[in-house]
Amino acid sequence: MPANPIDPIALSADLIRCPSVTPVEGGALQLLDKLLSDAGFETWRVDRGDTPNLYARWGQRGANKSFGFNGHTDVVPVGDEAAWTVDPFGGEIRDGILYGRGATDMKSGVAAFAAAAVDFVQDTPPDGAVILAITGDEEGPSTDGTIALLDWMQTQGEAMTACIVGEPTCPEFMGEMIKVGRRGSLTAHFTVTGKQGHSAYPHRANNPLPAMARLMDRLASHEMDQGSDHFDASTLAVVTIDTGNPATNVIPASCKSSANVRFNDLHTSASVIAWMQSEVDAVAAEFGVQIDMPVRVSGESFLTPPGALSDLVSAAVVAETGVTPTLSTTGGTSDARFVKDHCPVVEFGLVGKTMHQVDECVPVEQITQLKAVYARILRDYFA
Amino acid sequence: MPANPIDPIALSADLIRCPSVTPVEGGALQLLDKLLSDAGFETWRVDRGDTPNLYARWGQRGANKSFGFNGHTDVVPVGDEAAWTVDPFGGEIRDGILYGRGATDMKSGVAAFAAAAVDFVQDTPPDGAVILAITGDEEGPSTDGTIALLDWMQTQGEAMTACIVGEPTCPEFMGEMIKVGRRGSLTAHFTVTGKQGHSAYPHRANNPLPAMARLMDRLASHEMDQGSDHFDASTLAVVTIDTGNPATNVIPASCKSSANVRFNDLHTSASVIAWMQSEVDAVAAEFGVQIDMPVRVSGESFLTPPGALSDLVSAAVVAETGVTPTLSTTGGTSDARFVKDHCPVVEFGLVGKTMHQVDECVPVEQITQLKAVYARILRDYFA
Ligand SMILES: [Zn+2]
Ligand SMILES: [Zn+2]
Repeated sequence: MPANPIDPIALSADLIRCPSVTPVEGGALQLLDKLLSDAGFETWRVDRGDTPNLYARWGQRGANKSFGFNGHTDVVPVGDEAAWTVDPFGGEIRDGILYGRGATDMKSGVAAFAAAAVDFVQDTPPDGAVILAITGDEEGPSTDGTIALLDWMQTQGEAMTACIVGEPTCPEFMGEMIKVGRRGSLTAHFTVTGKQGHSAYPHRANNPLPAMARLMDRLASHEMDQGSDHFDASTLAVVTIDTGNPATNVIPASCKSSANVRFNDLHTSASVIAWMQSEVDAVAAEFGVQIDMPVRVSGESFLTPPGALSDLVSAAVVAETGVTPTLSTTGGTSDARFVKDHCPVVEFGLVGKTMHQVDECVPVEQITQLKAVYARILRDYFA
Repeated sequence: MPANPIDPIALSADLIRCPSVTPVEGGALQLLDKLLSDAGFETWRVDRGDTPNLYARWGQRGANKSFGFNGHTDVVPVGDEAAWTVDPFGGEIRDGILYGRGATDMKSGVAAFAAAAVDFVQDTPPDGAVILAITGDEEGPSTDGTIALLDWMQTQGEAMTACIVGEPTCPEFMGEMIKVGRRGSLTAHFTVTGKQGHSAYPHRANNPLPAMARLMDRLASHEMDQGSDHFDASTLAVVTIDTGNPATNVIPASCKSSANVRFNDLHTSASVIAWMQSEVDAVAAEFGVQIDMPVRVSGESFLTPPGALSDLVSAAVVAETGVTPTLSTTGGTSDARFVKDHCPVVEFGLVGKTMHQVDECVPVEQITQLKAVYARILRDYFA
């Protein structure tokens, strides 16, 4: 340990006090920039559009061993502020629990890896590089966040040889889960257009709603797969169907719906879209309606096959928490979907139970544990 | 003809100038009250709640022959007033066409039967009674309109032995169609309730939307019947499905929809509701969701079997227009659904093409024809 180790709990609280709701920087990246610069890191603000991003490297550019951490300082909005029992940006600790927006997702994660990295390079300067790639847009559209950092790195000859994303990954207790991949995600938006009319004369109209009902039924009742070696089954969730017709004697002209698909490595976004388009075409032909289906792909599925990196992280988790983590690919998307095109990447972080909720919080003990896990990973990686 | 026959065109225009959007009286019933009183009718304002109604009788209460006309002076709102090329309440005549809200539905119909009735009793006082039952709430909820008039008549010993409802019944040209019945109508409002959740973890939620899609598909694709002797096939129109969930990563807790059913004499509202409830129960059980289905019944189906009354009206239409009308049960509901419990009732009136639309209008010649048809019906009925 260095003479004056960084306190990750105080750093977490300091970051919570920066009101960095996406895309506002809120002072969070500035705070980290100063901390890392003072510790001998080279730092760059890699802002793109309205999005603030911070890149920091200790050691040589392009070193054979360049271990990276990725995370975000932006947070989701407070929501119903009156429902909070604390100041969401107060960084208050009560009975050993740190409260505030971002306490788990993921200012404490950023604080833990920043503290671990600073202590590590000062205490035992490694033969290699330690990199922190921190974005201010993970909770927003994510178009100018980690992607911008990776784009910039490529133009600058900056590279990571392995990376940990510090998102909260544990469902219930510390050390429970490492994520080694994620399902892909896409959202399709359907508009079925028929012909408006009077509900007493349905044969003069062409009601889009029966076609919509049939299409959503077909999509929702289809079993996409039963899971694969490392993945749960793919799922399709119809998330909304809307018409907005207040008149019960009027057949509406059109209706909209959206479906979100989480697909595993048995599919690609292209194969999912092709399947949905074939169902759309069949229903459109059967009902004589027009169906449009724009699709937004959030990310392809990916897997960092269990191996050197996941072994390294697992061993550190066992040593520091006493818990043997499972390797999982469950959950939503994260910026690991971008990093995976760059280098092997796994995700490990806090218990995510309260993320995005009122009174988001984390036991301070977990922050200390997380810093210890990250520190051990660094030691072992460069050993 | 009496010395000073009533001009039904001028009377129609005068009624249009009364801004009687439901439930406002607007002076329309007052105008008719004066006209009828001056002609020797006894009149009563039979208001109930906020609804103005007018009852007028010439001749003896409870006469063996008591011929009635039913109609309404209220009109639907103007809608987009800027889209009108005339003052909707101006009663303007251009090139032989009378314009204004209510021109076809149904101030001109009321003017035609009021003019026919006044002339008839003055010219050839019949051995019996002529009754006008006119409401100011047909376009609204209809709970205190013709129903209130019929309720009041019962308490007063007032009765009709036959009745014509003067709604516009002709689709394209004058004399085309007499309505001898109507399909019943009901609207069911469905709420499917599941359990909210994250779209990445659909197994932890219970999405109400697949159940809604299945239920609407089953209801909409079911053939209720193929029509009956006097009726078209029954129809079910899903008129709206709504969720209002803006977040594509959230599975909603509930979803609503409405379906409007027009059913013929092979069904009753009770049998339709029983069928829908069985589908609701099946889908609720299959998907493990809760489904509520409140139903509003607008009216049962009814038929005045072709016979004496329809023959009388048909003969008058042929004599005055040269057109042989078809006897039909098509279209929406009308107050005939209430009158049918009281006495034989058929409906005959103007061409309804422009009803409820911008620039609602009627050729003045049709108003003159309609008055002549009603006058001939009175003469023949009392002959
Ligand atoms: Zn996060
Ligand atoms: Zn009407």
